[in-house]
Amino acid sequence: MADYQVPLQDMSFLLYDVFNNDTLWQHLPKLAAHVDKETVDAVLQECAKIAEQKIAPLSRQGDETGVHFEQGKVTTAPGYKEAFDTYTEGGWSALGGDLDYGGMGMPKVVTAFHEEMLCSADISFSLYAGLSAGAGLSLAKHGSEQLKQRYLTRMYTGEWAATMCLTEAHAGTDLGMIRTKAIAQADGSYKVTGSKMFITAGEHDLTENIIHLVLAKLPDAPAGPRGISLFLVPKINVNEDETLGDANHVSCGSIEHKMGIHASATCVMNFDGSQGFLVGELNKGLACMFTMMNFERIGVGIQGIGTAVKSYQNALAYAKDRLQGRSLTGIKSPEKSADSIMVHGDVRRMLLNMKSMNEGSRGLSTYIAMQLDLATYGEGEQQVKGETLAALMTPLAKAFFTDMGFESTVTGQQVLGGHGYVREWGQEQLVRDTRISQIYEGTNGVQAMDLLARKVVGSQGVMMQVFIDEVNAYIDETSAENMQEFILPLTKVMADLSILTQNIITRSAANPNEIGSAANDYLHVFGYTAMAYVWAKMVEVALQKQDSGDHFYLSKVQTARYYFARMLPRTQSLISAINAGSDTLFAIDDQLF
Amino acid sequence: MADYQVPLQDMSFLLYDVFNNDTLWQHLPKLAAHVDKETVDAVLQECAKIAEQKIAPLSRQGDETGVHFEQGKVTTAPGYKEAFDTYTEGGWSALGGDLDYGGMGMPKVVTAFHEEMLCSADISFSLYAGLSAGAGLSLAKHGSEQLKQRYLTRMYTGEWAATMCLTEAHAGTDLGMIRTKAIAQADGSYKVTGSKMFITAGEHDLTENIIHLVLAKLPDAPAGPRGISLFLVPKINVNEDETLGDANHVSCGSIEHKMGIHASATCVMNFDGSQGFLVGELNKGLACMFTMMNFERIGVGIQGIGTAVKSYQNALAYAKDRLQGRSLTGIKSPEKSADSIMVHGDVRRMLLNMKSMNEGSRGLSTYIAMQLDLATYGEGEQQVKGETLAALMTPLAKAFFTDMGFESTVTGQQVLGGHGYVREWGQEQLVRDTRISQIYEGTNGVQAMDLLARKVVGSQGVMMQVFIDEVNAYIDETSAENMQEFILPLTKVMADLSILTQNIITRSAANPNEIGSAANDYLHVFGYTAMAYVWAKMVEVALQKQDSGDHFYLSKVQTARYYFARMLPRTQSLISAINAGSDTLFAIDDQLF
Repeated sequence: MADYQVPLQDMSFLLYDVFNNDTLWQHLPKLAAHVDKETVDAVLQECAKIAEQKIAPLSRQGDETGVHFEQGKVTTAPGYKEAFDTYTEGGWSALGGDLDYGGMGMPKVVTAFHEEMLCSADISFSLYAGLSAGAGLSLAKHGSEQLKQRYLTRMYTGEWAATMCLTEAHAGTDLGMIRTKAIAQADGSYKVTGSKMFITAGEHDLTENIIHLVLAKLPDAPAGPRGISLFLVPKINVNEDETLGDANHVSCGSIEHKMGIHASATCVMNFDGSQGFLVGELNKGLACMFTMMNFERIGVGIQGIGTAVKSYQNALAYAKDRLQGRSLTGIKSPEKSADSIMVHGDVRRMLLNMKSMNEGSRGLSTYIAMQLDLATYGEGEQQVKGETLAALMTPLAKAFFTDMGFESTVTGQQVLGGHGYVREWGQEQLVRDTRISQIYEGTNGVQAMDLLARKVVGSQGVMMQVFIDEVNAYIDETSAENMQEFILPLTKVMADLSILTQNIITRSAANPNEIGSAANDYLHVFGYTAMAYVWAKMVEVALQKQDSGDHFYLSKVQTARYYFARMLPRTQSLISAINAGSDTLFAIDDQLF
Repeated sequence: MADYQVPLQDMSFLLYDVFNNDTLWQHLPKLAAHVDKETVDAVLQECAKIAEQKIAPLSRQGDETGVHFEQGKVTTAPGYKEAFDTYTEGGWSALGGDLDYGGMGMPKVVTAFHEEMLCSADISFSLYAGLSAGAGLSLAKHGSEQLKQRYLTRMYTGEWAATMCLTEAHAGTDLGMIRTKAIAQADGSYKVTGSKMFITAGEHDLTENIIHLVLAKLPDAPAGPRGISLFLVPKINVNEDETLGDANHVSCGSIEHKMGIHASATCVMNFDGSQGFLVGELNKGLACMFTMMNFERIGVGIQGIGTAVKSYQNALAYAKDRLQGRSLTGIKSPEKSADSIMVHGDVRRMLLNMKSMNEGSRGLSTYIAMQLDLATYGEGEQQVKGETLAALMTPLAKAFFTDMGFESTVTGQQVLGGHGYVREWGQEQLVRDTRISQIYEGTNGVQAMDLLARKVVGSQGVMMQVFIDEVNAYIDETSAENMQEFILPLTKVMADLSILTQNIITRSAANPNEIGSAANDYLHVFGYTAMAYVWAKMVEVALQKQDSGDHFYLSKVQTARYYFARMLPRTQSLISAINAGSDTLFAIDDQLF
């Protein structure tokens, strides 16, 4: 397996050359003081070192060893504790954190790259860090001053980890059905009782305390999702003097045995009258969780990019090295027993599918991260637009990047043939590890419904129009002759997307099932189209530098051509399938399945 | 996990109602005497019992336990030995075998269903049986009378198992590079020396002897694939009196640790001056192997169907049972806390993707198996046409059914959400187990090249024209009004396939890279199109019986509609990608990847 190498040049290209983030940061008052190119470059370089040197080497062994569960205790895989200590000592737990509580306040475009590096190195490790960061966002936004001073500060130092406890056995997507109860106590705290499942990092030996954010209902709460509140429940109580006190009746009942992410502890967590503290308002727990989730769901999407990048690096190294067969156009390496498999069109197809999707995904994820930054740190119209696009594109990021990432890991495995199927090469682990990203944090089907039902149809197309207007303005202003090979197909798919959107809105007014039957395919049409927009922006810069002698730019130009020629046409079949309508799905009685 | 249920009604529907095999058998002299509906029905029913009751229950434990390797010995998973004994005692090892040596002489359409049942039950188990059957075909066709009397008869009884030893570390697809040597001995036998890898069932404890068919080269053999010969090398020598003699210097060096098929032993096999016997002619070993492979590659394709069917059954049972959310068109089960997830369009989409592909694959595989039967048992023009179509469609069967099968297992896993990712539900095992079928027996990329380079372009379109003519004749003669909703799109995709084929042949004359760059996508266009033809034939029968009160037929009709409306459009994107041409792949220098 090739050593993982962080694609720092591509990250820099996106941040500065394509999306001008250095200028943007200077114009955002909440970032200008502490975020600049020099700082960010140093952050990314240091992060690359830890990902390449400290975390990536743990991944194979972590997969083999997994986590060990015995008598309620979880022992992480060899090297995890040391690597986690190195990680937290480097301040990485605070990277995206609130400046007022010890965070570094880095924008999402930077933390997104940090997440990609961690996920390329080892998704399992990244989850311990990621859950804390995610819970930290929710606490920073909704927690009381006291909770933030007491807990958030020590989550940022990495002294304590955190989790999000949502799912119960009978309540996954449909959180309105949760049964975990919270009873108000005289001192203002609550006693939380219930059982949660699929809790990532619910129990482990990396930190001395674990802070659980738990969804629960008060006895008299309204039924359904509007009766859910959010509570902070520490594994170990914290005394008034900030020292650790008694255990808080929080226990890990078991861990799951899973297809992948073996080194990530997926726990059943039991709360048995545990002391909890309300976060945000009563019965507004879902909202508290979801403001964080918008920020974090892109992070799950990035898991797909991370593994896909690793898969590409491995597959490329293997393809260059593996000698098998001869080129159809004549022998290329007569001095060798066979040509490298790079001569075969189908191997190149597989590699370029991966390359064009990976770079396109990184570009699109940077674009979406910028919208989140504008929504968070921007002002006025810019802030409103960023918020709209972030809300629109967050489900896209989660589902599209993980679907593409899974495809890329499977494709990379195929390049290795039989060696991709045996464990020792590590390539099959990427397939198993990344598969969960299409499922957790809301399945990709649920993301598709969030996009189409809530955002697109829910706004009667207004939110999508914000995106369409931006791209159409870009098309209008991009008149350079050498860009027309990209602008013409972009114009075509944008028109297709616009018509498709209107059609679905119209049809769904008469029959809401049109939404559910179109959602998944619509999300992918949007994904390929939005990626075409970002590829156009990337190639526009690269074309100007393709003769610079730096192969990076010529590679970018030709990869863009590949994307437009061979990936973007996927929208055609998807649109045809959608236009077949919902009767194709609903005319069939359940008993006929 | 749902108990596996063999889809016997669908098998019967295909055999008799759609493809009239009962009539066909009567008209094939080599089959008429021993193959009829009554016999075949009994065979399939008995096979269903053993698959459902004896083999399927072993699968989960087999995955957990795997095979155990110690000091050259392989111990199979719990229950395998007993099940294998039951299997061989039932005569199943002889099912497709030559009548003259104790085989049952069942046609491929029957053994194909037998293979599907075994693969749905447990791919790992099926491989021990399948390798013996495959090696038996090669031996029956090319072995001397003495070899067949001595070895084949006892492979049919199941007393002995067999393998195929092709791959070496540096020679997978490119077998011309193998280094295993065979030295002629005075007694007419050969001493075989070399190391083979990825040998399925190379060593195990199911039988007292294992018969290896080994590709090797004589010292003075021509270089490349034309210098390869095939040898029969028993694990234990067989004395003149048919008793077992000394060990034959055949050893298992190690086994692979793999993504899936954990209960299948994948071995490194070392031959150290082992006594071997020539099978077929010297230097014609590849041909001997490949006559068998045509017959067997469809079997690997059927592995994809088998797991996909199991995945669908599990996913459907889960979807009907799982309550989560409410229908977009209003509450469907007010008495329950939530509606079943069958109300959600995207869940129905996933299930119908699986259902339409699974039934379509079974139909198409039956059609291809019939061509193999005509090629083997037919006479005159019928035989020639069967041989042509079998040769054309064998790589399609292997690659298309396994690609579709993998997609179906992944889709079925998605239906189960988080429960699809944990091991206890067994759904993720199907994904891991089926993944290998896209890789071994020639990767799907290699199959695509076999189809497009060797068969389609190699015959200048003549072989494909045989298929096109058959379908066009069917279109012409199918004038019933209620069939036109299927005939019209079939006509369209047949025209597309015809034009696409001619385009590639023309373009490849100037640039052979056009073949490699189109191969994979072309195979899929052919697959969806051929499946549309078979769906038309299936729905034609089902339409006549849809009011019979048997839900089976109405379900078939509506699933056909789904296939045409939502799966068949996939050809559009594929054709666009192919038409982009080979420059999209080859204009990029290797160093720019």
